[in-house]
Amino acid sequence: LQQERMEAFRELFLDLHPADQAEVFLELDEERAVVYEFLSPEEFAEVFDSFEPEVQKEVALQLNDQYAAEVYNNMYADDVADFLGELEPRQMTHILQAMDQEDANDVRELLAYEDKTAGAIMTKEFVSIKATDTIDEVIDHLRREGPDAETIYYLYVVDEEEKLAGVASIRDLIVADSDRTVSEVMSSRVVSVHVEDDQEEVAQLIQKYDFLATPVIDSEGRLAGIVTVDDALDVLAEEASEDIGEISGSRGSTDVSVNAFKAARLRAPWIILLMFLGLFTAQVIGWFESTLESVVLLAAFIPMIMGSAGNTGTQSLAVSVRALATGNIERKGLWRTISREFSTGIMIGVASGIVITILLYLFYGEPLIGVIVGFSIMISLGMASVIGTLVPLVINKLKLDPAIASGPFITTLTDIISLLIYFTVASSLIQSI
Amino acid sequence: LQQERMEAFRELFLDLHPADQAEVFLELDEERAVVYEFLSPEEFAEVFDSFEPEVQKEVALQLNDQYAAEVYNNMYADDVADFLGELEPRQMTHILQAMDQEDANDVRELLAYEDKTAGAIMTKEFVSIKATDTIDEVIDHLRREGPDAETIYYLYVVDEEEKLAGVASIRDLIVADSDRTVSEVMSSRVVSVHVEDDQEEVAQLIQKYDFLATPVIDSEGRLAGIVTVDDALDVLAEEASEDIGEISGSRGSTDVSVNAFKAARLRAPWIILLMFLGLFTAQVIGWFESTLESVVLLAAFIPMIMGSAGNTGTQSLAVSVRALATGNIERKGLWRTISREFSTGIMIGVASGIVITILLYLFYGEPLIGVIVGFSIMISLGMASVIGTLVPLVINKLKLDPAIASGPFITTLTDIISLLIYFTVASSLIQSI
Repeated sequence: LQQERMEAFRELFLDLHPADQAEVFLELDEERAVVYEFLSPEEFAEVFDSFEPEVQKEVALQLNDQYAAEVYNNMYADDVADFLGELEPRQMTHILQAMDQEDANDVRELLAYEDKTAGAIMTKEFVSIKATDTIDEVIDHLRREGPDAETIYYLYVVDEEEKLAGVASIRDLIVADSDRTVSEVMSSRVVSVHVEDDQEEVAQLIQKYDFLATPVIDSEGRLAGIVTVDDALDVLAEEASEDIGEISGSRGSTDVSVNAFKAARLRAPWIILLMFLGLFTAQVIGWFESTLESVVLLAAFIPMIMGSAGNTGTQSLAVSVRALATGNIERKGLWRTISREFSTGIMIGVASGIVITILLYLFYGEPLIGVIVGFSIMISLGMASVIGTLVPLVINKLKLDPAIASGPFITTLTDIISLLIYFTVASSLIQSI
Repeated sequence: LQQERMEAFRELFLDLHPADQAEVFLELDEERAVVYEFLSPEEFAEVFDSFEPEVQKEVALQLNDQYAAEVYNNMYADDVADFLGELEPRQMTHILQAMDQEDANDVRELLAYEDKTAGAIMTKEFVSIKATDTIDEVIDHLRREGPDAETIYYLYVVDEEEKLAGVASIRDLIVADSDRTVSEVMSSRVVSVHVEDDQEEVAQLIQKYDFLATPVIDSEGRLAGIVTVDDALDVLAEEASEDIGEISGSRGSTDVSVNAFKAARLRAPWIILLMFLGLFTAQVIGWFESTLESVVLLAAFIPMIMGSAGNTGTQSLAVSVRALATGNIERKGLWRTISREFSTGIMIGVASGIVITILLYLFYGEPLIGVIVGFSIMISLGMASVIGTLVPLVINKLKLDPAIASGPFITTLTDIISLLIYFTVASSLIQSI
């Protein structure tokens, strides 16, 4: 009976795509143990690979050591390295010792590269060929090695020193006659990246050239690995989430699978820090108490002026963060970006300023308050757009953690500055009349 | 001499990748005319394809009609459709008439699909084979058709009615014996998308399954085209920019290549609309004038409370927008997302509330003001996180334009609500003492 159930399960389950197998598996509770029993480590490796890192950690604890080691041996080295990177050093060493020596060494090499570099995301399972091979020989080679490689669509040509000499696509090979040599069909101009290049640059390169993979070379010019397009997709998605985290000050907690306590722990320091900075705004209002007392109506427009400046600053921040992420800054030039944002801010400021001046005059019948608010908005918006653009750029240049350029920080900065502008304009206009 | 220069130019230029050729071309001014002369329409098609839509429009005007039509004939139908979609209807018709009848019909079909659907981004240049073909026959077929297809790595198997029956990768073919038939190596479980599916879902599917391409079927179940992974990369990048535009209220203007006036025109209506809403905050402050007069110090903390609520709301907004974009909402459930955000907001609120109460007591020696501000922050932050999460979800459910869920809108909403909470708490606590 057990045997029959196993056959039935295997037939149904193995017919699914690994990504779907992973979804089915996650629906199970105690039955998971049965799945480990029914599937070979090689089969389970594909399921395991489709899990998110947190689930991998949880599942890894349920596996027995022998089975687990076999699972890792059957995964691509870069995926094992991603998973191990999430574990404690002690657990990592333990797992590496249990694995096959050769596979473990590949993983160790990848782990040695700094996080978020081409070296850390590349795969070691690529197909390399020699320029002197005939196409027939290459096809034979693929029949044997193909099933283990992550992609066989680009074949990298290396010389005796393992240095990258060219690239040929399967398409090139198929279209050519089978008795010609690789050197006749390969392209010797290969776009490659360095092991230490930032993962975002690698993904942008793949996107720009519409590549399926790009070779990664080490400091001696040897072919060390390849980054495939599916890794590039994941990197771009990850970087987009990071940008959004940066703009909204919720870095690391935009994923709904993070629990509420952890999300609160990640975000609360921000909110509290900004609350401290908010005490400065209280201070600024304090300085201008006498101005406020003479025209009490001024207090009513504080939120509106701060809000408009904050909104404009956040818009410029988005432009700046995005331009850094897509590499558009280098293409368009730093000053052109800043001056475009400043002009945009001023134009929005002029439009808003005129509208609010007219509106307040119609509402309150007082031209002075309209002029004060309108003029303050005009200057504040221009300032806010420059601050929103500049802060992330400066932080990027200083190579500091870009998290401090987040939206709430900009908003707080524009709050303080717009308040200063408002009260300075108000007190000088009121005095001069 | 002219001939010699042409040879030298062609040798240098054609050795570059099309994406790099495009960059070199854009550096030129009057010399562009020479490039058209030196390159065949077929060669220039690859350069043209690498331009951004705005540059394509500009360059298209410089080409003579005959040359231009040849360029479009040599591009993939989906790329021509993308370009034509940016033009006036009259220009579009003119170009389609100049093109080859067959190519033009492919382009017309793609243009008929709604923007941002699988149909609109798919390519018509795919390789379809029959299940009864032998592998040898398929390879022969590829030698002939391969150079025109956008990808040859996935081969789609169709029956007599053009219905999708299976898929085989080049890898499957190479590993198998050449006298076997396609039906023996193909997989008959094919993950496909429908022509009307949203482009974002298609890109997510490709990312989830690590596909190089996915087939697109029409309402009769016929294979209509394929979406390749490089299109998925572009879609994900585009959607990430849109999400960021949504959070920052700068939709459509985060790209630095948009000029300042256009950026201002896109953003100013937002800022002005929000300024109008800001008048409500002025109104709310007006309502509580008597409370404010009795404890003037209350005014100083208005910016801090509004700021904290706005920041918390924006964080929750980022979570919500991101969860919608990545499809995580469906996976985790609507209520779990909302309740997680509410719990997170309350926890941040409690932490911030306690800190500020202590701080204000130490600063001002007045326990009452500390308790009022602390308690208001606690409630405001819980509310703000729910608003930030809920608004984009509701808008998504109502199928309205998500642009109205943008960050500044949420901030203005939380401004008004936190002000109401603050003054209600303040007036009731002050009265009760």
